[in-house]
Amino acid sequence: MAHDPELFLRACRGERVPRPPVWLMRQAGRYLPEYREVRKKVDFLTLCRTPELAAQVTLQPVDRLGVDAAILFSDILILAPAMGLEVAFDPGPIVDPPVRSAADVARLVVPDVEAEVPFVHETIRILRKELAGRVPLIGFGAAPFTLAAYLVEGEGSRSFETWKGMLYRAPDLAHALLEKVAAATAAHLVSQARAGAQAIQIFDTWAGLVSATDYAAFSLPYARRVVAAVREQGVPVIYFALDAAHAAESVRACGADVLGVDWRRSLAEAARAFGGASVLQGNLDPCVLLADGETVRERTVAMLREGAALPGHIANLGHGILPSTPVESAIAFVETVRGFRG
Amino acid sequence: MAHDPELFLRACRGERVPRPPVWLMRQAGRYLPEYREVRKKVDFLTLCRTPELAAQVTLQPVDRLGVDAAILFSDILILAPAMGLEVAFDPGPIVDPPVRSAADVARLVVPDVEAEVPFVHETIRILRKELAGRVPLIGFGAAPFTLAAYLVEGEGSRSFETWKGMLYRAPDLAHALLEKVAAATAAHLVSQARAGAQAIQIFDTWAGLVSATDYAAFSLPYARRVVAAVREQGVPVIYFALDAAHAAESVRACGADVLGVDWRRSLAEAARAFGGASVLQGNLDPCVLLADGETVRERTVAMLREGAALPGHIANLGHGILPSTPVESAIAFVETVRGFRG
Repeated sequence: MAHDPELFLRACRGERVPRPPVWLMRQAGRYLPEYREVRKKVDFLTLCRTPELAAQVTLQPVDRLGVDAAILFSDILILAPAMGLEVAFDPGPIVDPPVRSAADVARLVVPDVEAEVPFVHETIRILRKELAGRVPLIGFGAAPFTLAAYLVEGEGSRSFETWKGMLYRAPDLAHALLEKVAAATAAHLVSQARAGAQAIQIFDTWAGLVSATDYAAFSLPYARRVVAAVREQGVPVIYFALDAAHAAESVRACGADVLGVDWRRSLAEAARAFGGASVLQGNLDPCVLLADGETVRERTVAMLREGAALPGHIANLGHGILPSTPVESAIAFVETVRGFRG
Repeated sequence: MAHDPELFLRACRGERVPRPPVWLMRQAGRYLPEYREVRKKVDFLTLCRTPELAAQVTLQPVDRLGVDAAILFSDILILAPAMGLEVAFDPGPIVDPPVRSAADVARLVVPDVEAEVPFVHETIRILRKELAGRVPLIGFGAAPFTLAAYLVEGEGSRSFETWKGMLYRAPDLAHALLEKVAAATAAHLVSQARAGAQAIQIFDTWAGLVSATDYAAFSLPYARRVVAAVREQGVPVIYFALDAAHAAESVRACGADVLGVDWRRSLAEAARAFGGASVLQGNLDPCVLLADGETVRERTVAMLREGAALPGHIANLGHGILPSTPVESAIAFVETVRGFRG
């Protein structure tokens, strides 16, 4: 069946669509052999910073899976070097030295994103040309809370105790950092929209680190500011707060057009928690794609049936696709959504 | 003020008490210099298996912090060698080879716990004698879902994709494993109660890996069985499912006397989600203990005020105490609870 190139954007705007659009978080990634081929030649950061290659891997899942949207190949930490920090990937991000003191925060630069991350905008321009309207292009970045968590912790961590220690011990310092990170993030995402990104997804991967009260204090105000800046560009925003079932009220208050839902809650539960009015994106457990095709199809259909009762639904996984996923499972997922008629 | 040695057990049974009892998950641990002294001499597994030393470190926080309960020093994986598996700690648990196939599951032994983990019972007997009624002794183990997750994954992991892959790809195999693990766990916890443990805490640390539906299918039935077996011994059970705000209905259905609450939700929210009738345990964010004494006291009092509106409250952290915690913060937490009068 032919693609409707507008399907994804119409769903983002809450319009009625004949079937939910579908894409996969981290769809340009290691589960694809053609991605691993490219990565044999360049390291991760070089790939992010080389527009021709970043565009190439962005297009791979569009060609291979038939998804309804492309998402820019980049990383949520791509802003950190522009802010004056050293970042490496091994394979998770390492910020060394991390941001710990008032002097560290004072030294951080709110970058001129046009000058400092030109490769992002160039990648977007190449992609818009190569996609030629086939499917829309999504840009993305981290929510300020999540980016700040990495900058302070210095690396991924189970409890992010250095970052949380700062929230509780030195909340003013945490807020000063969040201010700068929010300004940089807003500029970065607005510039992606101006370069041609047709929707923006904001990842608040570490929303589940804190209580609803602390989330409302340390994440929500900064996420709202970024969401509002992007929406002023006329571009819809998807906000995905992972593991934030306990903070639904704040998540809804961020003002995004679409709310991402992880695999823990059913879409129906999430809709109730959000008050029923939002377009939701998600939420098949990425581990389901490790099972047989029959199970993938059954669980995808179950998710789609729940989605059909919502004001709007964009089919996706409930977290990034795992590197160990068989490509056939990703295809089975996408084809099940494309064949669904409520 | 003098301790009421029965305070903790009365609170577990839902009786009215003059103030909430207090203890800390992982209170015998690396944040205590006297614990680190003992660990200089023996490795972790030897410490668990040497009754005199295990009893010694169990008593350390009782003496140092003035908590209202002692908790046996052991590990949730202490059962794995008795089931026929090789376990090491580096520092997290490693099960090598892990349980992957039907043959692996068939080979697993439901152990004669009296013969296979005699050191646990001996530690409990020493402790009951040394505590001499000063405070009650809590025994513990993992919920079958959480222990099985480790046995299949082989080590800690962010997404436990091997275990979750088994749930979705081979649910019958997962259930066969859970049956054996539940039988072993029930025997282990019943034997702790018979040896003298006066309450049992069951840790379902990986409850948040799966959706509410999968939790109801793969964790709840086995947790219920273990809870029921322990309660038949006349011993109260605390069930702590981490990151399970999305599955409150199933958590409540496990039949425990007390439900643990992590730091994400407020006690008031958790009480609403559980239907209002349960005694709750928790839930100060362990990272709060990294802040100054003033902040520790303020946030502890805020938690206690929420707890005072519940049918019953046992003060605790919302997760294990962090190794980097200053001892003074742990003391400030305990003293704030002990001085609280609603």
